[in-house]
Amino acid sequence: MTYSVAVSGASGYAGGELLRLLADHPDVEIRTVTAHSNAGQPLIAHQPHLRSLAHLTLQETTPEILSGHDIVFLALPHGQSGQYTDALTDVKLVIDCGADHRLTGKDDWDAFYGGDFHEAWSYGVPELPVGAKKQRDLLVGADRIAAPGCNASTVSLSLAPGVAAGVIDPSDIVSVLAVGPSGAGKSLKPNLLASEILGSANPYAVGGSHRHIPEISQALRAAGATGDIRLSFTPVLVPMARGILATSTARIVGDVTDAQIRAAWEDAYGDETFVQLLPEGQMPRTADVIGANTALMGLAVDRAAGRVVVVTALDNLTKGTAGAAIQSMNIALGLPEGRALSVNGVAP
Amino acid sequence: MTYSVAVSGASGYAGGELLRLLADHPDVEIRTVTAHSNAGQPLIAHQPHLRSLAHLTLQETTPEILSGHDIVFLALPHGQSGQYTDALTDVKLVIDCGADHRLTGKDDWDAFYGGDFHEAWSYGVPELPVGAKKQRDLLVGADRIAAPGCNASTVSLSLAPGVAAGVIDPSDIVSVLAVGPSGAGKSLKPNLLASEILGSANPYAVGGSHRHIPEISQALRAAGATGDIRLSFTPVLVPMARGILATSTARIVGDVTDAQIRAAWEDAYGDETFVQLLPEGQMPRTADVIGANTALMGLAVDRAAGRVVVVTALDNLTKGTAGAAIQSMNIALGLPEGRALSVNGVAP
Amino acid sequence: MTYSVAVSGASGYAGGELLRLLADHPDVEIRTVTAHSNAGQPLIAHQPHLRSLAHLTLQETTPEILSGHDIVFLALPHGQSGQYTDALTDVKLVIDCGADHRLTGKDDWDAFYGGDFHEAWSYGVPELPVGAKKQRDLLVGADRIAAPGCNASTVSLSLAPGVAAGVIDPSDIVSVLAVGPSGAGKSLKPNLLASEILGSANPYAVGGSHRHIPEISQALRAAGATGDIRLSFTPVLVPMARGILATSTARIVGDVTDAQIRAAWEDAYGDETFVQLLPEGQMPRTADVIGANTALMGLAVDRAAGRVVVVTALDNLTKGTAGAAIQSMNIALGLPEGRALSVNGVAP
Amino acid sequence: MTYSVAVSGASGYAGGELLRLLADHPDVEIRTVTAHSNAGQPLIAHQPHLRSLAHLTLQETTPEILSGHDIVFLALPHGQSGQYTDALTDVKLVIDCGADHRLTGKDDWDAFYGGDFHEAWSYGVPELPVGAKKQRDLLVGADRIAAPGCNASTVSLSLAPGVAAGVIDPSDIVSVLAVGPSGAGKSLKPNLLASEILGSANPYAVGGSHRHIPEISQALRAAGATGDIRLSFTPVLVPMARGILATSTARIVGDVTDAQIRAAWEDAYGDETFVQLLPEGQMPRTADVIGANTALMGLAVDRAAGRVVVVTALDNLTKGTAGAAIQSMNIALGLPEGRALSVNGVAP
Repeated sequence: MTYSVAVSGASGYAGGELLRLLADHPDVEIRTVTAHSNAGQPLIAHQPHLRSLAHLTLQETTPEILSGHDIVFLALPHGQSGQYTDALTDVKLVIDCGADHRLTGKDDWDAFYGGDFHEAWSYGVPELPVGAKKQRDLLVGADRIAAPGCNASTVSLSLAPGVAAGVIDPSDIVSVLAVGPSGAGKSLKPNLLASEILGSANPYAVGGSHRHIPEISQALRAAGATGDIRLSFTPVLVPMARGILATSTARIVGDVTDAQIRAAWEDAYGDETFVQLLPEGQMPRTADVIGANTALMGLAVDRAAGRVVVVTALDNLTKGTAGAAIQSMNIALGLPEGRALSVNGVAP
Repeated sequence: MTYSVAVSGASGYAGGELLRLLADHPDVEIRTVTAHSNAGQPLIAHQPHLRSLAHLTLQETTPEILSGHDIVFLALPHGQSGQYTDALTDVKLVIDCGADHRLTGKDDWDAFYGGDFHEAWSYGVPELPVGAKKQRDLLVGADRIAAPGCNASTVSLSLAPGVAAGVIDPSDIVSVLAVGPSGAGKSLKPNLLASEILGSANPYAVGGSHRHIPEISQALRAAGATGDIRLSFTPVLVPMARGILATSTARIVGDVTDAQIRAAWEDAYGDETFVQLLPEGQMPRTADVIGANTALMGLAVDRAAGRVVVVTALDNLTKGTAGAAIQSMNIALGLPEGRALSVNGVAP
Repeated sequence: MTYSVAVSGASGYAGGELLRLLADHPDVEIRTVTAHSNAGQPLIAHQPHLRSLAHLTLQETTPEILSGHDIVFLALPHGQSGQYTDALTDVKLVIDCGADHRLTGKDDWDAFYGGDFHEAWSYGVPELPVGAKKQRDLLVGADRIAAPGCNASTVSLSLAPGVAAGVIDPSDIVSVLAVGPSGAGKSLKPNLLASEILGSANPYAVGGSHRHIPEISQALRAAGATGDIRLSFTPVLVPMARGILATSTARIVGDVTDAQIRAAWEDAYGDETFVQLLPEGQMPRTADVIGANTALMGLAVDRAAGRVVVVTALDNLTKGTAGAAIQSMNIALGLPEGRALSVNGVAP
Repeated sequence: MTYSVAVSGASGYAGGELLRLLADHPDVEIRTVTAHSNAGQPLIAHQPHLRSLAHLTLQETTPEILSGHDIVFLALPHGQSGQYTDALTDVKLVIDCGADHRLTGKDDWDAFYGGDFHEAWSYGVPELPVGAKKQRDLLVGADRIAAPGCNASTVSLSLAPGVAAGVIDPSDIVSVLAVGPSGAGKSLKPNLLASEILGSANPYAVGGSHRHIPEISQALRAAGATGDIRLSFTPVLVPMARGILATSTARIVGDVTDAQIRAAWEDAYGDETFVQLLPEGQMPRTADVIGANTALMGLAVDRAAGRVVVVTALDNLTKGTAGAAIQSMNIALGLPEGRALSVNGVAP
C-alpha cells in the first residue's frame, strides 16, 4: 500500500530533509506540507533544492489539515508539537522531530525546557542498546515516535555500548561536539549569520545547560547505566552547514583489556548498517556522512589518560533527525529498515 | 637601537606571520629571510600578502647566512632547528618556533618526537603561572627562547590557574580542540586539501598520540601540579584557516565554591593584556582573535558534571606562535611587551 | 540485464562520484575499480563515504584489467585516456571523463592541450541544442562517449539556446565562474591547500588560456553559431567543495523583445528534467544542486547594458561530470534517462 | 593635535572596521560611539574583537550626541545619513560611509535608491584617475567626504585607467564579483544565514538593478569616459566573511598594443601604495588583502576575445569602506595618507 503523508514545518531545515528523503520513498505519497508564516507559498520558494516537489504548496499547520493522513511528521520548534499531537488521534503514525515527546521524566522537562509536559513516545534511534535488546525492538508496530535530538543521539550512540558492557564509567563522561549551524534551524539570530560563522568556532550552552543532556542520560540509563550519570557536554558551532563530530570520552572501569573494550562496541554495532565502527586506528570525519543515514565511529583507548575516546560523525539533518525518523517509520510499518535511506555520503 | 633580524622558514605559515608582525615593529630591521626549496625566489611569491616586504629575496637556510644577526627566528619543521642552534653562538637572541627546545624531559622527547634531543630553552608563554611567578619573569634577558606549540599553550593557559590554585584535579583533564589547518603548515598532504577540509570536521592524533601532550604536562607541572597528570587530548580540524578553540574540562577538587574557582583564573589573568578572562556567562569565539595576540577565555562551573569547563580562543599563528615569539622577544630585550602586537582581532 | 562496469581513476573525485551514483543503479554491477599509485588498497581507504562499496579493492589501471566489462568509465587526468581507449575494442560502451575525446579540431587540441590527438566521441551533454535537435539524439546507441568538461558544459548550456535562436551575439560573450576546488581533482598543489582556499577567492587561467574555451566554442558552433565566437572566460576558485555558478552574458542581437529572448531558453529546456529555467526574477545558487544531476538557470535581460545575463548553477562532479556520464550511459543503452540520478539536491 | 571622533552605526560591520582602524590611529581619540537599537549597551558586546575599546558604551544616534566632535563618521543604512548631515554644521569633518552623498545625479538617485536626494560630497577613493588628476587632489582640505560603495570602488579602480587612456570601450563592460556577506551588513535576512551561505555561491541583483552601477558610471565619466557607459554588473555571494574579487572585462579599442594597454594601468597606479598592479601573469586573491587597505590588481589582454580582463581583490570592509574613509580623512586633514592603515594583509 502507499501511505499518505503530511509534513509540518516543511519550510525549515528538518522539514526539508524529511521531504528530500520521502520524495524517493516508494511506499509514501507526500500529500500535504504545512508551515506557519510561510503558508500559502510554494514549497519550492523555501526549499529550492526539492525540484521534484515543485507542485506542492505550503498550507497552514492545523490539526484539521494534518488529520486524515496515514503518517504525520511534526518538524516544529520545541514545545509546539504537543498542541497538535492530542488532536491527531486518527493518524496511524505520528513522528515528532521536536523534543516534546522525548523525555520520560517531568523533572528533566521542567529543568531544561519548561511549559507543558507530554508523555514520552518510542525513541527513534533503532541501534541504541536497551538492556540486552535494541531500541529497534521497541519501535516495531509503534504508532507514536519521538525522533531524537541530533546531538543527543550522537553521544548516546557513542557511549551506550560501553555503558551497557560496564567498561566505562558513566559518572565521568565528557563530550565536545563540532556542529554545523543547520542544527539550530532557520532562525534569524545574529549569531547564525554567515559573517559570524565563517572562519570561526563558537561554543554555546557551555557548562551544563544544553537541553540534550537529560536525553543522553535517559538513553544511557536505558542502556544499563547504574549510579550517577555525570556528563560534561559542550557543542561548538563550526563553519560547515551540516554535520556533527562528537568527541566523547569516559573513564575506563576496572582492569578491562583493550580488546574487551573494543568488543563492547563491536558487539553492539557489528551487525548494523547505519552505525559503523571503523577499524582500529581509523577515525571518521563528517564529510563522509553528508546526506547519508550513517553514523561512523572511531574508538581509541588512551591508557595514559585512563579513558576511552569515541569519535562519531553523522549528518545532523539525516541520521540525526530526518533519516532517524524515516528509519524508525520503516521499522514501525514493517518496511525494509533502510528504504529510501543511503549508507553512502556525498563527498567531497 | 635597531636589531637586525633573520627569519628562517620564511615561506611557511609561521614564518609569514612572524614577518607580518615584525614588519610593523619599530625596533627591528628584517634583514634576511631564508627558506629551503624556495631559496632564490622573491619572498612575495610565497607570501603575497606581505606587500611591504616585496624587496626581500629568500636565501638558503644555512648557519652562515643566519649568523651575524642580532636576532634569529627559526620557523622550521620539528627536529630541524637543532642543527642550526649549535652554530648560532654569536647571535644575541635565538627564538625557535619548532619543538626542538621545548621539552625538559628526554623521555618525553623520545616518546613523542624521536631523533636528537636538545636542551630546553626559556618557554615563550609569558602569562603562564609558574609557581607564584609568571613565565614572563623567566624570559627577562633570555637569549634562547622556545616559542610554544599552539595547541599546547592554549590548553596550558586554560588550565594552569586552576592547577596552581589547587581547585582542579590534573589527573582528570579532557581537552578537545577545534583547529584550523594552518596549524599543520603548508605541507602537501591529501588530508589538508581544501576539498577534504571544506564542509567537514576531521579529528586526528586521537587517543593520546599528539605531540603537544608532554608540553602541556610540563607546563602544568611548572604551574604547581603534583601527582599524576592525565590528559585526554583530541584536536579536530575544522574549516577555518586560522584559530584554535580549546574546550578543556577538569574535575573540581574538594568543596571549593564557584567564587573560589573563578578567583583562581581572575588572579592569574586579571592584570594581563593578552590573556583575558571573559565575564561570567560569556564565551569566546575564534573570530574575535584573528590576527591578534589575544587569548580570550570563558569559564563555567558545571556542578552537575562536577567539572570546570574552560573555553579558550586564540589565533594559532599569532598568539599561538609568532605573536608569542615576538612578545617573548620584547620581554627578553627589555622592550614594551606589547610592541607590534595587537589586542584587537580582525572580525568578522 | 545487468551490465558489468569498471571504473578507472576510482580513487579520485570524479571516480568517486561515478561510484556513488552507480552504487544505486539497478542495471549495473560495479565489478572493477582501478587506480594508479593507490592500486592494491581498499577503495574505501580513498573514498570513505562509499560505505556500500567497502568490499572493493583498487586494481592497476591496465587495458587487460579494464577489458572484458560491458561498460568502462575512464576518470583519468587529461591526456591519459587515449592509451587505453585503443585497447578496449571489446568493450561495449566506453565513457571518457577526461578531455581526450572531446574536441573535433586537432588545432584546438594542439593549442590548449598538446600531445597525441584522439578522435572526438559523442558528447555527453544530452540537453544541448544541436541545430534543430538535441545532443541526446546523438547519444542513442552510442558506444563511445566523451563526458563534458564541467565548466564547459555549464557555459554551453547557458548560452546555446540564445545562440541557436539567434538572439545573442556569439562574438561578444563573457563568462565568469565561481567554482569549487573539487573540479581541480585530488592533486597535491599548494594553491589547493585548505589554508589557501578558505576565506579567499582565487582566479586562475585568466585571459583566454583555460582549456574549456575551445570545448564551449565547439558546442556553440554545433548549436548554430555562425561567424566568430569570442568568449572571455574566467574561473574563480571559491571556498566550497563542490559547485559551479557561471555568470554568462552576451550582447543582444537586433531588436528582439524580452519575451522573444526568454522564449529561446524556454523552448530549449521547457521539457527537460535536469536543466531547468527558473521563473523570471529568480536566480539559482549552487547549494540547491549539490549531489543532484540538475542544472538550474536564471535569465535576466539587462537593457541598459544591452546584454542577456544567464546564471547557471550545477554540481561540477554530478551534472558536470559523473551525472552527465551516467545520464549519457542511460541514453546510449536505452535505459530510462534519469535512472540513478536525482533531480533534488542536498541542502542546506 | 588630537582630533575627537564619533562613530555612528558602531555596532555594525562597517562601524566595527572604522573603530578597529581608528583604535591604532595616533591622531584621533574615539570619544563617542553610537547605535540605534543597541544604544545603552557596551560596545564590546557587539564588537567582541575590539578589546582595546572595552571602555566604550553605545549611545543613541542623534545630532546632539554627534555634534561637538572634530570628526564624525556615519556608518548608517543607506538613506539615513541625510537627516544627520544637515545638523552637523559645527563638525569640522563628516565622512559618510552610506550612499547618501555619493551620486551627483538626482535621476540616478531616484532610479536606484529613492527618497530624499542629497548633494554629492568629495568621493573617498584617492587613487581614482579624474581627468589628468587623481581623486586625491579633490580630497585635500575637504570637510565632507562620501566613502565609496565597496563593489563600486573595486570596479571603478579596475577600469578607470583604461577608460582614461582610451584603450577600452566603456560601452562594452562586464563585471562579475565574488563577494563576502559582510558587505551586506549585520542584517537578519534568511539569505544571509550561515546555513544558506556555507558551501554555496549565490548571485543577487542580477540584470542591472544593483545600486552601485550609477556610482561606477559616475567614476568612469570622471575618469574621462565619453559616450555611452554600458556595464553588466553581477555580484555573487560566496562563503568568505570578507573580500571582493572583481573580474572586469572591457572591449579593446582600436589597435592599441598590449604594452600600451598595460601602460595605462602602470601609469595610473605605479606610484600608489594601496593600489598595486601585479606583474604580468600574476593574479590577485582576496586572502592577501584581508584587513589591509590594499587593492591588488591583475591584468590580462585576451586577444582572442578582444578584451582586457582586470581582476581586483580588496577587503570590502577595509579598502572598500573603512580604510578608504580613513585614508581620505588623512588626506583631508593633511596627515600622512597611510597613517593607521596597513598595506599587508592577514593571511592565510
